[in-house]
Amino acid sequence: MKLLRHGAPGAEKPGLLDAEGNIRDLSDHVDDITGDVLGDAALEQLRALDPASLPLVSGTTRLGPCVGGIGKFLCIGLNYHDHAAEIGADIPAHPILFLKANSAIVGPNDDVVIPRGSTSTDWEVELGVVIGKTAKYVTEAEALDHVAGYCIVNDVSERQFQTALSGQWTKGKSCDTFGPTGPWLVTRDEVPDPQALGLSLEVNGKRMQTGTTGTMIFGVAQIIAHLSQLFTLHPGDVISTGTPPGVGMGMKPAPVYLKPGDVMELRIEGLGQQRQTVRADV
Amino acid sequence: MKLLRHGAPGAEKPGLLDAEGNIRDLSDHVDDITGDVLGDAALEQLRALDPASLPLVSGTTRLGPCVGGIGKFLCIGLNYHDHAAEIGADIPAHPILFLKANSAIVGPNDDVVIPRGSTSTDWEVELGVVIGKTAKYVTEAEALDHVAGYCIVNDVSERQFQTALSGQWTKGKSCDTFGPTGPWLVTRDEVPDPQALGLSLEVNGKRMQTGTTGTMIFGVAQIIAHLSQLFTLHPGDVISTGTPPGVGMGMKPAPVYLKPGDVMELRIEGLGQQRQTVRADV
Repeated sequence: MKLLRHGAPGAEKPGLLDAEGNIRDLSDHVDDITGDVLGDAALEQLRALDPASLPLVSGTTRLGPCVGGIGKFLCIGLNYHDHAAEIGADIPAHPILFLKANSAIVGPNDDVVIPRGSTSTDWEVELGVVIGKTAKYVTEAEALDHVAGYCIVNDVSERQFQTALSGQWTKGKSCDTFGPTGPWLVTRDEVPDPQALGLSLEVNGKRMQTGTTGTMIFGVAQIIAHLSQLFTLHPGDVISTGTPPGVGMGMKPAPVYLKPGDVMELRIEGLGQQRQTVRADV
Repeated sequence: MKLLRHGAPGAEKPGLLDAEGNIRDLSDHVDDITGDVLGDAALEQLRALDPASLPLVSGTTRLGPCVGGIGKFLCIGLNYHDHAAEIGADIPAHPILFLKANSAIVGPNDDVVIPRGSTSTDWEVELGVVIGKTAKYVTEAEALDHVAGYCIVNDVSERQFQTALSGQWTKGKSCDTFGPTGPWLVTRDEVPDPQALGLSLEVNGKRMQTGTTGTMIFGVAQIIAHLSQLFTLHPGDVISTGTPPGVGMGMKPAPVYLKPGDVMELRIEGLGQQRQTVRADV
């Protein structure tokens, strides 16, 4: 099942994508796609609906972030062997965690806005994991039972803000519009192996990132188990699991960053695609 | 005006503290103390109410975090000259920012739970700033107009999780119960100078932290102006502004950390007090 949110920013309605690629409205059945409808039993109820019986929504509608009311937006840094090699970083002993401000989260095709004073806004295609069931002190073997599904995240990053404004990465990760999430949440039954998904990102039609979740340093189950030792993961929390090689910061002979008018296209196998136009904050 | 939230966790009702120190219920006037009632006009409407006309609430009621639906919980690290000296850290060139997970936020007198595997859970009394009006690209001169009010925050921190689990401080700051917030939000008209407030923290009746917001490296207005260059501050966001000297990590001859049964008491001039009992997560 592919769950989504459609409509104007802040007023999104719940929906699903049917087998023909049409958007169907779920407003008669749930208020929103939030943590309280992401447990296995609640998802089963939605799965029992006949999509053809649900109101059809125009395919040109705006898509919002595929999860509403996200509690924590957790991000893992330096989580691909080939990306760590690309930027000359050591392999971390544990997943590196930072939080992205919730106010950065936008729809999958919304504009990405370069903040004033930015010189180095960069892209990062990532596998997003949406928690469906409360997780605390869970083992790796149990971890994936706590996942509602998966989606694409663009972990947009301002490298100068991230590293030159005194410690901690949060500043460069939390600018408004720096968290496109969607287009849809694909429930975990449709993703048999989250460690075997191809990922890619293009800028203006040129392939910049190509990878597979198979080269993650810490897999999804390991990440969930680790984080759940530290704090409770709640339904509707999202974990963005790090990016494969090909970020602008790593380009040779010199870094390449986003400029107004650029178009990013992100794809993950089975999870659809995102498309953002970049603009300046004037 | 002193705004608060009373009742069971997750089911708190809005209230205020009257001049006699009684809790009065505001449920007939607002749904909750959240960002949408923290603007100047909305606060003025609450201020116009006669507290004596509001239902009296038992003084033994539990207090929740004084703001509900907090969007971002922003924390500033190493922000007191005397604390930086205490731990031998350099004075940062810009405010150091990290985010505390919202799931860590609890009431001012709720238990603080030491997570499994913790060896070094520490305390940090801090001035919390609650945003009342959207702030983006604001100047220092304008910054305090965007503040609804102030409160106490205990930025509880697990030092091992913070520093030894691979980069970034978030892990040690985001454990469940690590963000007691309250007891009340004191509106800014009652805090003429946020840079002249005494702060203190005791553990089991022994004074550990004594400071004044006068020794902050970056004052409240500077912090708001700086953060608003990076992203939008929304009503209901909370900024915890760093801690004065006397944390357990800085004790001589050896660090001192919290153990089950310990009682922390925090005070900030004009903002009331917090009291937490520490327990183990069994």
